[in-house]
Amino acid sequence: MKIIETVKEMQAYAESLRIAGKKIAFVPTMGYFHEGHLDLMRNGRKQGDCLVISIYVNPTQFGPNEDLAKYPRDFERDRKMAASVGVDVIFYPPNEEMYPDNYQTYVNVEGVTDNLCGLSRPGHFRGVTTVCCKLFNMVKPHVTIFGKKDFQQLTAIKRMVIDLNMDLEVVAMQTTRETDGLAMSSRNIYLKPEERESALSLSRSLKMAKEMYNRGERDAGVIVNKVRTFIGDHPHARIDYVHICDTKTMKDIERLGGEAVIALAVRVGAARLIDNYVFGDPLEI
Amino acid sequence: MKIIETVKEMQAYAESLRIAGKKIAFVPTMGYFHEGHLDLMRNGRKQGDCLVISIYVNPTQFGPNEDLAKYPRDFERDRKMAASVGVDVIFYPPNEEMYPDNYQTYVNVEGVTDNLCGLSRPGHFRGVTTVCCKLFNMVKPHVTIFGKKDFQQLTAIKRMVIDLNMDLEVVAMQTTRETDGLAMSSRNIYLKPEERESALSLSRSLKMAKEMYNRGERDAGVIVNKVRTFIGDHPHARIDYVHICDTKTMKDIERLGGEAVIALAVRVGAARLIDNYVFGDPLEI
Repeated sequence: MKIIETVKEMQAYAESLRIAGKKIAFVPTMGYFHEGHLDLMRNGRKQGDCLVISIYVNPTQFGPNEDLAKYPRDFERDRKMAASVGVDVIFYPPNEEMYPDNYQTYVNVEGVTDNLCGLSRPGHFRGVTTVCCKLFNMVKPHVTIFGKKDFQQLTAIKRMVIDLNMDLEVVAMQTTRETDGLAMSSRNIYLKPEERESALSLSRSLKMAKEMYNRGERDAGVIVNKVRTFIGDHPHARIDYVHICDTKTMKDIERLGGEAVIALAVRVGAARLIDNYVFGDPLEI
Repeated sequence: MKIIETVKEMQAYAESLRIAGKKIAFVPTMGYFHEGHLDLMRNGRKQGDCLVISIYVNPTQFGPNEDLAKYPRDFERDRKMAASVGVDVIFYPPNEEMYPDNYQTYVNVEGVTDNLCGLSRPGHFRGVTTVCCKLFNMVKPHVTIFGKKDFQQLTAIKRMVIDLNMDLEVVAMQTTRETDGLAMSSRNIYLKPEERESALSLSRSLKMAKEMYNRGERDAGVIVNKVRTFIGDHPHARIDYVHICDTKTMKDIERLGGEAVIALAVRVGAARLIDNYVFGDPLEI
């Protein structure tokens, strides 16, 4: 397994792979791996001749009062986990490589980032799409794999790839969950034991929303209210948002008809947790 | 000479060239060619195994009250001129290929686009950098050639390429001029015969600025005032701006020390003309 730290080396290596006719699969990450990351990598392993992952805690996607400084990092642990699932290259650039002096260019996906986390975390998606655009230009992948847990992020990345004509395929993978249903997230380590039950209100309320939908409920407001009440009954949970949106536009909808997603963001203690469910998905929650 | 109209075909052809180890040179244009365009193409012809040009009048770089509708177009004429300088591929996409429904992604270079044309033409550079990002992803060039006439555009493109880690070289070429000194521009056709003398105030005032600099003048304000007065004495000329800026940041400077450019925008009749001179350049104006 190769570890590459400079843009120049990454690009030269990627270019040599492409010229040799190899297919590059890419999983961008912020490190501190859990099974969710490893599932993305296992999928990437199957899709490409060469599996590249990046580990970079991207400062431009964190707000001024967010957890950039304390975001968990453990490169040695990540390195071993990546090796265990057959990663070929870890791209691990320092900040100076990513954002040198006089850096001033940003990619904005305007519509789909307005709602949800776009409201709660101004500038967040600008940071995400910008760093992904940069990483795609460095790693030159044929296919890139993203998780559905960050559903709005996935929608924004897909939109950027289409709009900017990036010649690569975006593959979306189901959220990986703990056995009790909690969506895996590097931020789960912020949870104290007594907060666990409150953290489970996200997946449990999504299950409730799924059941309401399956019983025929189509009024988004009715489902949102039920979910809000359920989560609100948990002592450590503070709702940031509960929205039901069109999956393509990420605009709120009132009636469930086309493809729709219910997306949640809830603060539980020091953690801000997100989760979602696409209505009609047979998925177990 | 191939003419390609779809993104899919352009990308597939570009990819096949790259895999075959061919070097792609690219000149993006809005068509209605003059010798300036042809000079860029002749340079591209020397740099690459395959010379691709694009002809696309990009709506996102025009303001609501600008000349998008009447911007001159003549594909047949352009096609012949391109063939005469050895172009291999004309990429000639329709609007639906470039900006399909739900289009919503933009590339912003923030600092270097604030001043000059960024003040007079809000949104202009966002359109330029966005369309160039898209075109680069379609044509996949190793080298791209831009003219220095649109100096701030060149600076913004260079900045975008560095910041977004696009793996290509940006080559800048000197402005091509008419024998009387007028910088070549597709917009020169808007000039009436009686406006020609006023249009020449741009290049003549730059020559004056050059001579002042060569005689030792280092006070930007003194040079700007002299240039403004000279242009202002022409009956059909209305100054949009006269700035002396650092060539990297495009911020105004007071004293000439590092690399600096004097940049002009002047309305002459229906035409908005721009021109510039980089101090210390031995160039004939």
